Amino acid sequence: MPAHRITLRPSNRTVDVPTGTLLAEAAQRAGLELAQPCGGQGRCGRCAVQIDGSGYRRRSTLRLSAEDLEAGFALACQTVVEGDLAVEIPPQERLQRMLVTDRVASRDEVPLVYESSTMQSLRILQLALPEPTLDDSRDDQARLLAGLADAGYPSPAVPIPLLRRLGPVLREAAWKPWVVLQQADAQGPARLLDLAASPPKPLGLALDIGTTTVTAYLVHLDTGEILAQAAEYNDQISRGEDVVSRIIYAGKEGGLAELGDLVRRTITALLERIRLRTGLEPDDILKVTVSGNTTMAHLFLGIPPASIRLSPYIPTVNQPAPILGAESDLPVHPQAEVDVLPGVASYVGSDITAGALAAGLDQAEVLTLFIDVGTNGEIVLGTRDWLVACACSAGPAFEGAGVVDGMRATEGAIEEVWIHAATYEPTVRVIGGGRPRGLCGSGLLSLLAELFVTGVVDRGGHFKMDLGSPRVRPGEHGPEYVIAWPAESATGRALALTQVDVDNLLRAKAAIYAGFTVLAGRLGVDLADVEQVLIGGAFGKYLNVEKAVQIGLLPDVPWNRFRFLGNTSVRGAHMALLSRDARQAIRQLAERMTYIELSADNAFFDAFTAALFLPHTDIRRFPSVAEVWQRENGVKEERP
Amino acid sequence: MPAHRITLRPSNRTVDVPTGTLLAEAAQRAGLELAQPCGGQGRCGRCAVQIDGSGYRRRSTLRLSAEDLEAGFALACQTVVEGDLAVEIPPQERLQRMLVTDRVASRDEVPLVYESSTMQSLRILQLALPEPTLDDSRDDQARLLAGLADAGYPSPAVPIPLLRRLGPVLREAAWKPWVVLQQADAQGPARLLDLAASPPKPLGLALDIGTTTVTAYLVHLDTGEILAQAAEYNDQISRGEDVVSRIIYAGKEGGLAELGDLVRRTITALLERIRLRTGLEPDDILKVTVSGNTTMAHLFLGIPPASIRLSPYIPTVNQPAPILGAESDLPVHPQAEVDVLPGVASYVGSDITAGALAAGLDQAEVLTLFIDVGTNGEIVLGTRDWLVACACSAGPAFEGAGVVDGMRATEGAIEEVWIHAATYEPTVRVIGGGRPRGLCGSGLLSLLAELFVTGVVDRGGHFKMDLGSPRVRPGEHGPEYVIAWPAESATGRALALTQVDVDNLLRAKAAIYAGFTVLAGRLGVDLADVEQVLIGGAFGKYLNVEKAVQIGLLPDVPWNRFRFLGNTSVRGAHMALLSRDARQAIRQLAERMTYIELSADNAFFDAFTAALFLPHTDIRRFPSVAEVWQRENGVKEERP
Repeated sequence: MPAHRITLRPSNRTVDVPTGTLLAEAAQRAGLELAQPCGGQGRCGRCAVQIDGSGYRRRSTLRLSAEDLEAGFALACQTVVEGDLAVEIPPQERLQRMLVTDRVASRDEVPLVYESSTMQSLRILQLALPEPTLDDSRDDQARLLAGLADAGYPSPAVPIPLLRRLGPVLREAAWKPWVVLQQADAQGPARLLDLAASPPKPLGLALDIGTTTVTAYLVHLDTGEILAQAAEYNDQISRGEDVVSRIIYAGKEGGLAELGDLVRRTITALLERIRLRTGLEPDDILKVTVSGNTTMAHLFLGIPPASIRLSPYIPTVNQPAPILGAESDLPVHPQAEVDVLPGVASYVGSDITAGALAAGLDQAEVLTLFIDVGTNGEIVLGTRDWLVACACSAGPAFEGAGVVDGMRATEGAIEEVWIHAATYEPTVRVIGGGRPRGLCGSGLLSLLAELFVTGVVDRGGHFKMDLGSPRVRPGEHGPEYVIAWPAESATGRALALTQVDVDNLLRAKAAIYAGFTVLAGRLGVDLADVEQVLIGGAFGKYLNVEKAVQIGLLPDVPWNRFRFLGNTSVRGAHMALLSRDARQAIRQLAERMTYIELSADNAFFDAFTAALFLPHTDIRRFPSVAEVWQRENGVKEERP
Repeated sequence: MPAHRITLRPSNRTVDVPTGTLLAEAAQRAGLELAQPCGGQGRCGRCAVQIDGSGYRRRSTLRLSAEDLEAGFALACQTVVEGDLAVEIPPQERLQRMLVTDRVASRDEVPLVYESSTMQSLRILQLALPEPTLDDSRDDQARLLAGLADAGYPSPAVPIPLLRRLGPVLREAAWKPWVVLQQADAQGPARLLDLAASPPKPLGLALDIGTTTVTAYLVHLDTGEILAQAAEYNDQISRGEDVVSRIIYAGKEGGLAELGDLVRRTITALLERIRLRTGLEPDDILKVTVSGNTTMAHLFLGIPPASIRLSPYIPTVNQPAPILGAESDLPVHPQAEVDVLPGVASYVGSDITAGALAAGLDQAEVLTLFIDVGTNGEIVLGTRDWLVACACSAGPAFEGAGVVDGMRATEGAIEEVWIHAATYEPTVRVIGGGRPRGLCGSGLLSLLAELFVTGVVDRGGHFKMDLGSPRVRPGEHGPEYVIAWPAESATGRALALTQVDVDNLLRAKAAIYAGFTVLAGRLGVDLADVEQVLIGGAFGKYLNVEKAVQIGLLPDVPWNRFRFLGNTSVRGAHMALLSRDARQAIRQLAERMTYIELSADNAFFDAFTAALFLPHTDIRRFPSVAEVWQRENGVKEERP
């Protein structure tokens, strides 16, 4: 057997190996131990190397993109030597960046095409009015309205808060006042929103009020630019972690007002942070768009949400009329329009309709699945012509809550896990790089997928106690897997995933997958026919598609059909802030979505039960997972 | 000479007198002294008697109406005996009632023809909505709006304060809610104003905000009935008695807000009084109309009035858009429309436009003079097709202010005066009947006229000090006439009209008459051609036309052309409260009135100077006054 010379860079060590040797073995022989957290199974991608030369064969390219392959990347544990090679071992940090992008179509945001002169409903202009005389003694309002009409903005009257300032402003401006107008419809009448002696700043605010997190964009309404953004926990969390507990709290004496105050406190704190960075004054914010689930919208507007929770699940309002800044009690211009965007139903709110716009569902010509997984999982399936939507109560597990060692995706959270197929030892990535304090949603999902693929739990989610690993042990809450020993954690306690946690995660993923199943059934399509899967929400931001598919949370379609869109809700609000057409498109999306109430749907319970397995009772729905699992576990797939 | 037997009733005394004897003399011979406060000059009417028989001749019938003459009334001091007569001497109270009505066309209010189903902009109805189900899961707002559309009231949205109550109300009402709608235009969209589980009370409030007095009518919007009315001093008086001093006060730090608070305090107190009488709750008031001069309107709305006072006298707004109860900060329904009615100019406000409607100017086919004398005197002249208007700063003299012993027309005020032509002794009528505390506007005017007619003052308004009466004396403020000695007054002090007071009154009446003159000049008509003189305002309520003509305040046209209409401002507000057409007519009146700014009119100063005499420099403009004055004073009229 001919020997081939392998040169390993950057160390320039060399080794001669026969044809058929794995590159990982060759490196080991040269005294270089490549990281293989998955145990050389070709799953983790951490042993990726870049090869100069053509004498090699890749057994598996699971973690590599077309561009990676083009550039000569290969997995050392899956690559067979067939000639002389120069092999570059990239530093782990570089690999990590490469792998974090995952093998999905994109994680970037859709670029914004914005033409404020036609799309923006807000207009700022300066008038030149004739000075009054004894012969032209029209009152200030009549003079202003005549000037507006001359400028092409017939307006019926000046609202009282502005009338109160009109006289002094006109005189201070020497009859050349600046006016801010809102024209919801290019053909319609204009609403006078502000007047001033000096030019107002054209600022707007896009707000996404999530059950857990509130996100704010400060936007320049002329350019569309996001001048500042900030996100903060919704202070309502202290009164309940999910919408149902908020609704219950709102029903208590004073509870509704308190919840309203709490979310306003959060928004005010965000604006204060933005103010410190930008020098913005409250009155500078001339327009606000708000997206959020229906319960968040009710609480923000001070509307009792009680009926949302009780069959037949009726909200008071899906399409509220815009209110004024003063009515919203936010620190914005009192005459600003505060537009809570239209939703569809009690559990499909404007976070989904705005998100659907941001995801481009209004243009989608192919079968598209749009999901936004937060405390609730909302799902939309269809094309631009016909959309069905539903909501699944996933619970807070995917946000790191309701799980013993769960936490939010902040510093100290384990966000990705690999388990060695032979030793069952974990390798973890921690946000911030220090010792772990717990697991965030993507870490939990990653861990569950690894436990399943390496056979630590069976398809029913039950821990196998006979693996001989000290990490699988009986714990306070039943069997558990120890992901960090006390000495490895930042807390000095062991961090573990318990059987109860696994069951919680199973129920969460089953609820969402069952939602897909019901919607596909309604449309008479197969999930395998979905041509794009658009994932919104903070959850999606760090989601590893491979692992989400492995546990059966996402349907098993090619990875390039997935797109991660980040916070689609706030992006939709941003679009609506800038464009009348976008605002209109959100309303049309809301009207075009048929809401399916899952609790009233018999198919849902069956689909849910079937999805309570890993990845699913019917593993044929997940062919790529079946392949990996069978290889790892060496057994034939059986219907349980 | 034949003797005639005169039988005097009710005493049944008889006396025989020769032909040609005055009835007053005959009574005296019989031992009955008839009241003759004017000294037997036929001016006061207090000696009126009712005669059975035909043997008598009336020399003068000045105080008697056609009906009085028909009924056999005659003035004892002006009636010559020519045969046997039975003479009934009526009790003074009855005479007083008869005389108080004066000899003018009417003092009554125009009856209201009201058809709420077509005229009222407010609608109250009960809807029957389908209960929501899982199959009909429209949100509460959509369900309500569909119900409204079915009932013929398409409405675009539910305002946020009602959205906040919508869910609980619909459920409490078992889906049969009561709704209150406002439809400003029969063809236009309806505004949802209230919703409730039980039928709302259809109440409205008409408010007249005067510089001195605020008047409120609580009105049943179905029947038009005035359920309660109340009037109270405007609490702003403590910050200035006239509009100019209020405007100056409003310009001080915090002054505008303070004046707004003060008038709201007055209105709130009025409503509290009405509440105690009627059990009304603030939320029951579903509609408010407000009339008032332009400064009062600005202060009520919280709009700085500064520019009203400075040339070119520009108000910020003559036609403000209606505001909401919540914006008005009044104790009324927060969604009630509070409609400050349209005015014309800085000094012709909605008190005049609403008053003009109440006076029927929108229908006037003949040349009509409409005046409303308060602290300012506003004047409108014209027909329904063409109206000119102006305002004269009369000052507060006619309201009893700015005069040493002046007071408002309340208990203890002298409201009418007669001076004996020979003794110069006064006879007074006091409101409430007790001892006098001062003179109100009509009392001052009456006193000045009597002083003039009896020659106590000359045509220039100067006291004649050589009359030999102790009542005409030098006082602290120059010459004065003592109307009540210390022993006769309620205060223990002498009450007097001083030379300064006379000069004040002269300027006040001259300003108003000069206004008439300028308006007539603009229209190219003669004041003598005015076919009706309509007098609004509290001042007019007690005004004695004869005396007002005698001092040259009102033009000298036949008394039956005068009509006293009381508080036309609040009556116009009442009409606008009830009828969309009335509201529309007020706006049309406002738009049809051409405002003449007197301060910019050279003719005004000349006319004012000419009117600074009693009754006027040119006495030929006042033929009836000339006749009386020449008879009393026995001198030929000379141009001074």
